[in-house]
Amino acid sequence: MVMRELQPPKGTRDFLPEKARKLQKIIEICKSVFEKYGFSPLYTPAFENFSLLSAKGGLGEAVKDEIYYFKDKAQRELGLRFDLTMPLARIVAANPQLQKPFKRYSIDRVWRYDNPQKLRYREFWQADIDIVGSASLEADAECLAAVCECLEKLGFEDFKIRVSNRKIIEGFIESIGIKNSSDIFNTIDKLNKIGESGVTKELLEKKIDASKIKMIMNFIIRNEAGPFAASERFQSGMNEIEYLFDIMNNFEYRKYLEKDFSLVRGLEYYTSLVYEISVGLNVSIGGGGRYDSLIGLFGKETPATGISLGLDRILEIMEEKKLFKEKKEMNIFIAAASDSVRSEAVGICQKLRGAGLRSEFDLMSRSLAKQMEYAQNFDFVVIVGEKELKKKSAKLRDMRTGKEKLVKIANLAKIFG
Amino acid sequence: MVMRELQPPKGTRDFLPEKARKLQKIIEICKSVFEKYGFSPLYTPAFENFSLLSAKGGLGEAVKDEIYYFKDKAQRELGLRFDLTMPLARIVAANPQLQKPFKRYSIDRVWRYDNPQKLRYREFWQADIDIVGSASLEADAECLAAVCECLEKLGFEDFKIRVSNRKIIEGFIESIGIKNSSDIFNTIDKLNKIGESGVTKELLEKKIDASKIKMIMNFIIRNEAGPFAASERFQSGMNEIEYLFDIMNNFEYRKYLEKDFSLVRGLEYYTSLVYEISVGLNVSIGGGGRYDSLIGLFGKETPATGISLGLDRILEIMEEKKLFKEKKEMNIFIAAASDSVRSEAVGICQKLRGAGLRSEFDLMSRSLAKQMEYAQNFDFVVIVGEKELKKKSAKLRDMRTGKEKLVKIANLAKIFG
Repeated sequence: MVMRELQPPKGTRDFLPEKARKLQKIIEICKSVFEKYGFSPLYTPAFENFSLLSAKGGLGEAVKDEIYYFKDKAQRELGLRFDLTMPLARIVAANPQLQKPFKRYSIDRVWRYDNPQKLRYREFWQADIDIVGSASLEADAECLAAVCECLEKLGFEDFKIRVSNRKIIEGFIESIGIKNSSDIFNTIDKLNKIGESGVTKELLEKKIDASKIKMIMNFIIRNEAGPFAASERFQSGMNEIEYLFDIMNNFEYRKYLEKDFSLVRGLEYYTSLVYEISVGLNVSIGGGGRYDSLIGLFGKETPATGISLGLDRILEIMEEKKLFKEKKEMNIFIAAASDSVRSEAVGICQKLRGAGLRSEFDLMSRSLAKQMEYAQNFDFVVIVGEKELKKKSAKLRDMRTGKEKLVKIANLAKIFG
Repeated sequence: MVMRELQPPKGTRDFLPEKARKLQKIIEICKSVFEKYGFSPLYTPAFENFSLLSAKGGLGEAVKDEIYYFKDKAQRELGLRFDLTMPLARIVAANPQLQKPFKRYSIDRVWRYDNPQKLRYREFWQADIDIVGSASLEADAECLAAVCECLEKLGFEDFKIRVSNRKIIEGFIESIGIKNSSDIFNTIDKLNKIGESGVTKELLEKKIDASKIKMIMNFIIRNEAGPFAASERFQSGMNEIEYLFDIMNNFEYRKYLEKDFSLVRGLEYYTSLVYEISVGLNVSIGGGGRYDSLIGLFGKETPATGISLGLDRILEIMEEKKLFKEKKEMNIFIAAASDSVRSEAVGICQKLRGAGLRSEFDLMSRSLAKQMEYAQNFDFVVIVGEKELKKKSAKLRDMRTGKEKLVKIANLAKIFG
């Protein structure tokens, strides 16, 4: 087999132990915060019926270009899930007995057929929280607060959450007399990436009047809406943001929020409030919003709001920022000085494990010298020798100081405890 | 969307919160035991290149019938992994820098295109431990011991691990003069399912002499090998089992093992020792064995041994046996007696969360009566009212006893702590 085939499929990656532990750490922190906020876990299958996935943003068949689509042997159309929200919508529609609000978290993999690039993979991990069944803005605030607490606990200090409301930009665009506005939202959404001149250029290409483009820019960059702030839709969106910011004061996380009316979040299923979470120079690590119409596609109309964190990006940024604290669990190696005492070494190792201690012994029939070499990254080594065994003792070496002492085997667990 | 489409794809299932918590519990117990035994985590992608998957047991293209196979948009042949061992073999071959023994655990989903039936799903969870790079039987014992400890910690008392060695049955079959033996192993392997008469019938159909079938039965059922135990291969296999059972005494888990020479484990990649773990009346919950040739297919020949537990089955059997202890974390609901104090309720809730307590408030703008109804499954309810707030206090109701008392808000966290 050639080496190329030993690599994981394009756009995916392996997490070898060191990285796997970091991912586990992030997952554990998110999980414990979500639980504390009263969210419950949910697992759904990795793949879904294509009919569910194609309901996204009314894309239909076109969604095939963005996902891993396949048929099973009975020609059922399936696809790997591209997010954790569509499965949640299905669950809620299929299980009307679920008590509302239904607050759930999912920390799991999703797959998208994107172009792989730095910080973008075809298989990636998301941590999602959603509150289903509550139209109240307190639900939005609750999700935002939980995410803020996660990010603080992970060690982030410089993150921010940009907040907008689709009603505002929709109301504004309508007021200045542009119809069929959805076409231009994708362009506006790129402001952070391609800048004012880039957006202007694209809007010109979309045959928008230069004067109207200037109004749009004044609004999304300088928040100047002029007379076009008058529409009911615009005002309703603005009031929601103000109220949300107020509640966030009660949660004590107001400081991370800022308004950004250029934020639309593309073709997604959001209906009003939208968020984008970023660190440093606008590296997005998550986002979300309110999607009051999505569940209605599959069942009873049900308000919902949620946020998704991208754990792969969070992991890599935490590595760059050195946010992983080296706090390794103590580990102990039981070395056998000769072959005659190997079974005793196993027995001692097993007793330490019985006391809850992470311990190992030699599985490679190595000499004592080679065992000590292997054990250099352990915290302690218990050296089992025939002579000491007669006195029911063994040598204990502290690998950090190199100091050795003779200890009773019966006392070992207590020494480490 | 019709209700059928609200179900997960055929053969898969959702884990709603109650079941999801049980799965999490099993995963946590396995993880903590594996870590204590010195195993490290590993995550590999859900899908692999088909060239890797097709290497299984030399099946080649035929493996497509058993897996979810698909092509990506660049016509790369891919498949959802059907186990966690093939990805491990790839990892070891691709990363020669990994220190040996490489002891890793993976607790993750796998997919097989099986016929769905009770206790058998197309998407299921496995907890695998493997030791790569050690040819020593201590490595086999280590895996077995870790699995025994997991099962004990999960609450199982009546499990057993049937042990055989391919060398024994292969040596025996060769000695009685049957060539091309692999064809009959699949039949022998079914002894536990179809019984002596079923196996006899199938072997007759495979044109095996009745006299030889009798010898086979005498051996696999009554362990009587007669003169056919003389071959070197047979004896080597037997010695390995005896030695393994000896070591398991040091691990104090000898009692769960029993010999069963009918055990072959079908078309898998095992080379010598094989195990099958079962509970009750032979319901299999896992298995494994030594596979010293698998990694050599992809890279440097490397000995390896491992065991896989089936978590879906374990979960369902634990439910049947009522092994899940109801040990819910305490939860607290903060009720607002009137709309005017809702933001104070949020603030109190957030303070309790700050103290690490699982707490929630009303997200549904409900009346106090409705809030109390919702909160009936909580342990405590803090009722925030205007009158009490003036005295910086709130009513605290113990939902298990129904008793109420007035407490200072500042003391709340301490009361629950």
